[in-house]
Amino acid sequence: MMVGIWLIGARGSVATTVVAGAAALRAGLAPPIGCVTELPEFRGSGLPGFGHLVFGGHDVTSTPLTKRAEELTRSGVIPPPLAELVRPALDAADSEIRPGVTVPSGGSGQDSQAAVARRLIGDLAEFRERRGLARVIVINVSSTEPPAAPDPAHLSLAALERALEGDVPLLPPSSLYAYAALSAGCPYVDFTPSTGARLPALDELARRRGLPYAGSDAKTGETLVKTALAPLFAVRGLAVRSWSGTNLLGGGDGATLADPAAGESKKISKDRALAEILGHQVDGQTHIDNVPHLGDWKTAWDHITFDGFLGVRMSMQFTWQGCDSALAAPLVLDLARLMARAHERGVAGPVAEFGFFFKDPVGSGEHRLHAQYEALRQWLEA
Amino acid sequence: MMVGIWLIGARGSVATTVVAGAAALRAGLAPPIGCVTELPEFRGSGLPGFGHLVFGGHDVTSTPLTKRAEELTRSGVIPPPLAELVRPALDAADSEIRPGVTVPSGGSGQDSQAAVARRLIGDLAEFRERRGLARVIVINVSSTEPPAAPDPAHLSLAALERALEGDVPLLPPSSLYAYAALSAGCPYVDFTPSTGARLPALDELARRRGLPYAGSDAKTGETLVKTALAPLFAVRGLAVRSWSGTNLLGGGDGATLADPAAGESKKISKDRALAEILGHQVDGQTHIDNVPHLGDWKTAWDHITFDGFLGVRMSMQFTWQGCDSALAAPLVLDLARLMARAHERGVAGPVAEFGFFFKDPVGSGEHRLHAQYEALRQWLEA
Amino acid sequence: MMVGIWLIGARGSVATTVVAGAAALRAGLAPPIGCVTELPEFRGSGLPGFGHLVFGGHDVTSTPLTKRAEELTRSGVIPPPLAELVRPALDAADSEIRPGVTVPSGGSGQDSQAAVARRLIGDLAEFRERRGLARVIVINVSSTEPPAAPDPAHLSLAALERALEGDVPLLPPSSLYAYAALSAGCPYVDFTPSTGARLPALDELARRRGLPYAGSDAKTGETLVKTALAPLFAVRGLAVRSWSGTNLLGGGDGATLADPAAGESKKISKDRALAEILGHQVDGQTHIDNVPHLGDWKTAWDHITFDGFLGVRMSMQFTWQGCDSALAAPLVLDLARLMARAHERGVAGPVAEFGFFFKDPVGSGEHRLHAQYEALRQWLEA
Amino acid sequence: MMVGIWLIGARGSVATTVVAGAAALRAGLAPPIGCVTELPEFRGSGLPGFGHLVFGGHDVTSTPLTKRAEELTRSGVIPPPLAELVRPALDAADSEIRPGVTVPSGGSGQDSQAAVARRLIGDLAEFRERRGLARVIVINVSSTEPPAAPDPAHLSLAALERALEGDVPLLPPSSLYAYAALSAGCPYVDFTPSTGARLPALDELARRRGLPYAGSDAKTGETLVKTALAPLFAVRGLAVRSWSGTNLLGGGDGATLADPAAGESKKISKDRALAEILGHQVDGQTHIDNVPHLGDWKTAWDHITFDGFLGVRMSMQFTWQGCDSALAAPLVLDLARLMARAHERGVAGPVAEFGFFFKDPVGSGEHRLHAQYEALRQWLEA
Repeated sequence: MMVGIWLIGARGSVATTVVAGAAALRAGLAPPIGCVTELPEFRGSGLPGFGHLVFGGHDVTSTPLTKRAEELTRSGVIPPPLAELVRPALDAADSEIRPGVTVPSGGSGQDSQAAVARRLIGDLAEFRERRGLARVIVINVSSTEPPAAPDPAHLSLAALERALEGDVPLLPPSSLYAYAALSAGCPYVDFTPSTGARLPALDELARRRGLPYAGSDAKTGETLVKTALAPLFAVRGLAVRSWSGTNLLGGGDGATLADPAAGESKKISKDRALAEILGHQVDGQTHIDNVPHLGDWKTAWDHITFDGFLGVRMSMQFTWQGCDSALAAPLVLDLARLMARAHERGVAGPVAEFGFFFKDPVGSGEHRLHAQYEALRQWLEA
Repeated sequence: MMVGIWLIGARGSVATTVVAGAAALRAGLAPPIGCVTELPEFRGSGLPGFGHLVFGGHDVTSTPLTKRAEELTRSGVIPPPLAELVRPALDAADSEIRPGVTVPSGGSGQDSQAAVARRLIGDLAEFRERRGLARVIVINVSSTEPPAAPDPAHLSLAALERALEGDVPLLPPSSLYAYAALSAGCPYVDFTPSTGARLPALDELARRRGLPYAGSDAKTGETLVKTALAPLFAVRGLAVRSWSGTNLLGGGDGATLADPAAGESKKISKDRALAEILGHQVDGQTHIDNVPHLGDWKTAWDHITFDGFLGVRMSMQFTWQGCDSALAAPLVLDLARLMARAHERGVAGPVAEFGFFFKDPVGSGEHRLHAQYEALRQWLEA
Repeated sequence: MMVGIWLIGARGSVATTVVAGAAALRAGLAPPIGCVTELPEFRGSGLPGFGHLVFGGHDVTSTPLTKRAEELTRSGVIPPPLAELVRPALDAADSEIRPGVTVPSGGSGQDSQAAVARRLIGDLAEFRERRGLARVIVINVSSTEPPAAPDPAHLSLAALERALEGDVPLLPPSSLYAYAALSAGCPYVDFTPSTGARLPALDELARRRGLPYAGSDAKTGETLVKTALAPLFAVRGLAVRSWSGTNLLGGGDGATLADPAAGESKKISKDRALAEILGHQVDGQTHIDNVPHLGDWKTAWDHITFDGFLGVRMSMQFTWQGCDSALAAPLVLDLARLMARAHERGVAGPVAEFGFFFKDPVGSGEHRLHAQYEALRQWLEA
Repeated sequence: MMVGIWLIGARGSVATTVVAGAAALRAGLAPPIGCVTELPEFRGSGLPGFGHLVFGGHDVTSTPLTKRAEELTRSGVIPPPLAELVRPALDAADSEIRPGVTVPSGGSGQDSQAAVARRLIGDLAEFRERRGLARVIVINVSSTEPPAAPDPAHLSLAALERALEGDVPLLPPSSLYAYAALSAGCPYVDFTPSTGARLPALDELARRRGLPYAGSDAKTGETLVKTALAPLFAVRGLAVRSWSGTNLLGGGDGATLADPAAGESKKISKDRALAEILGHQVDGQTHIDNVPHLGDWKTAWDHITFDGFLGVRMSMQFTWQGCDSALAAPLVLDLARLMARAHERGVAGPVAEFGFFFKDPVGSGEHRLHAQYEALRQWLEA
């Protein structure tokens, strides 16, 4: 049976790389580098094949995927000959993209968020039926939102549904999408640090509907390295005193995260891991700078100071230079395939075992990369 | 009961830091930073306390430990006030150091290696008895030797013991020490990449005598980081294409390892881990340069290139700046305490579970730091 | 004849290193590493010898210099044996330190700034006379102030002197010290990015009194490297697109500069050089983070992206790891000796040729290190 | 009048980038980034325009330039649309490439080197006449040769010409090309560290024929940065103690230079600059590693240790990540244009003022980048 992948932010760089990449993998035009679900330990698990994925999504812009793919070719993400060959797949996905929702402004004359949600739910149901899909996994790969203001209506499903009918917008877009996805019977994954399904009311909805959700904020660079490296200091009893990081990135992501409000979401999400792994707070700041010249590439520099035996001061630095879309895209495919399995199994609520993919894993306090990998492996084997 | 730690290379920087550090820990003058056996998970295991360790050793030089400690103070390893306070402990260890053996030159008129071994065995037995020790752990922290030339007499204990009586030196010093240690009923640890106990004849001796041994080449810098970091690429399915490393170090170690023959031992030992973890060979060389100005400090720079999704080329670099003696010394204490437990338990032959400490773990093909840690933890708990 | 060096911030790390270092150089206990005026090209210029310098200063704290020297010994700046030997010189300087002024709070009952200035002038005059000094050079090495609020009274000497008699404090401390120095007939150097003599009214005072002044913000790390490196891109026609920098530092300086207001002074001063050298603005931010564990050490990481032929994107990174006080101290001695010569020559107003030492050179738009060096060399030869 | 550029190694990456780039600049399809002769200070000097350059050359392979350009497009050097547009220019240059000479093997039956030289001279003369060129500049951009064995016949032109008629090959290819170029009345530039014109006999030939030559080994990465950075330490009196470098590069250049013999030429050439600038030898090695995955890109990591005031030890590191062909190509154009001017002016022998471009400048001991720039600027203005 076919599985739908419904991308929020379906016209962005990550989504375009996902669609192009899935087509390339299906056709055997590229090896599945960076796909965790294609590792030898996972390959025989009977997850949905790359040929069984159908793409659609929501987006607020109307740039065709083929145009976005051209930009990705220029910036070195999609090789030129491949871009040609996957054009039909991009066009097919394009025809399944529906208008998204923007930051709610509120005010009379506007649709209530309940009305907007009904439209989104309709888009999902219509996609599932028309394409005859066994299930549809909704994955948010849109731009990071600022942290959402707390509201009492976020605390229970009843209160939330009542409030959604009113004039005042209560949910940030990511949570409205999560609400719509769960209401439409679709698992939901938040690839960004946005609020998404992380509200008590939405958790209640997921459990009531018997649906899994996962998130948030995929780790693809600095935090990925951090969660592989920090355990070294922990198991060797070395006393980390400071961990400072500077992230330089361009593209739309650079501009979004350089905005202090959205950057704040990201930094909170990034900082959690370290204290959890080391067992104590450490000094040091994390900067996120927009450097337009870097385009889709990001450079992270981290500087760590630590004490060794007899208090001798030592240090370590690393520089990570990666291409954001190429790091993210295979994980989107992994999460879609794994979420399909979670849905089959009837998991309800957060899937803690998917923490391997996230900076801020919902349902789990484990941040050590290897332990997360082991948990994922065991979950899939079970 | 008291436990003896007999250091080969007992007047070197590492040995001096071990003796000074143990005294500081015993007196509560310094926290046990960098001691794995003092981590919460290990602390309650009933290993011998820092107050139950007695130091002695062999060395070919006669520099007093207090003089070496002064040098270590100047280079920032031992804090000045501490150097004063541990002076009596250094003097006590000094009085237990006996003349070591140098690279055998062979030739008539010289003692046979069997005769030399008898002297070393006598030193160990005399130390154990005079100080009333439950056991003595022999740990080689001397300079790295060139790889030893293979010899048929290395293949069985009988052949070896026959050959040792002859004129021609058959064993490199590290192996002669290992032979003496095992013959004297002492567990043996090789902290260096030298041959040590890694000959079939010596393995036979260990098993016959029911003695544990471990090694080799403690991981304290570049390889430590490598074995924490390489699994990241493996579990994420990222295709590492090259891993290049340059190690700059001064001190005696820098001079020794810049010698192509000894450096060769080190590089072989360093390179094994990567291919094991990644499952394939990668391009790239490892350089070890002597930079006298760095003194006891070492700087490693590693540069990694890898392919991501759709073949996009990415890279990572790290720089590790550490103090060699301060990184090594707590591991010597850890190994002594753990080896005492292995001896108590009657382990015979290589202790594979101590691979956590080594670049080239004898008895084990596991190089991933976290898996090694887990194996060690389980061994101690068992 | 003897020359006085009057340090504002005379009990800080830089000042203590200056006094200890001058004593060490005078006694031949250390070579003059880092002293520009001791380079072969400068050595024969007849500048005042290290034995002809007498130290005094103002400070708001009362920590004895010997105590500060002990801290500097612990953090590796002053070698332990040297600290002992220069103790008398530290005590001598200590006896010449007078209470400084803090940030003016204003309000009735307080002394007017004119009254405070009269006290400062008295301290300087008394020092010069009692010690029989040919001249006294005042050098501000205290903590960085926030940028000063503009005031019409800053625009002319007459307006300023009138306003200083009033209740409302008009000048930040650095400018009050500069006013006092110039009024007392002393050349003034600002080693920090604080306002100092850089007000039209104080420039007028310097010119009227025929006194030289110089500043501001000594370049000792990131900016020093920047002004040596940026010309490379300029002379090779490579198109720098971004230059991002992160500065990690501890000590008092780290805490001060992490304060957004004071950090702002620093960043303005740091950013000026790049645009001047490259001829255009480039993207990129400069961060200054307080990392207490680094103590007196600072680490700067800079990341540069540039386009080459046919628009190919390339990058460069550097890391600078230096000890702030040890980098600054010899330049303080250089500036004192050079300023003595400027005073002898009767230079009035800013000494543009001293721009070599500064991030934000008063009187000069030249930021290229080599061109600044050449200008300095020619000035001294003239 | 038109000027010919005759490239030795005319089918390599650098040559292809030169031809494609010149066509792009001529057509206004790309700005002249990286061209020194297009800086404001040089632009009005009346050097030959990009539209006045005609390309030809020698090469031992027969790969068409358009094929090599495709490879350069894949590795990100030539943008895809540009590659299309410059195709006619590549074809035109292709038709002017003649068979080159390989490493002489000697032995009976082979042509003497004199005979080979006559063929090369004929190629050059024929190119000049057929295309009606004012002058032809010969530039060696082929692979690096091992250092040449000294021979008495290298010491005078008479001895050389006699010996060339014999059976035994006396000159490495680069010197045979230089001999042919000068004999044909063409200025010669060595862009590589090969011997080229740097033999007394060839210098004699150049002076006798009134021809300029220049070299050797263009600085485009590590050494370029070194010669901009080392003066910083010199003018600040900081005592550099070690300078270690590791160069990682792929492409043909990586394979060639990883060969110890050719790498030796490079290292000798790279090491000269540092001691000259600092005035003393420093510790530290330079490694050149072949990392095929890097393709046309190279990464250099340099680590510098230095002492500051009172002997405090500090360090600096830099990483340079550049594209070799894109760094080299504009300098080839610069040198061709400048050499045309030198030829016009009748310069005979080495042009010391072109040292700005080279790691091992013939005719000059000046290695400081800024001083070399100044010398070049003054020469052109004169």
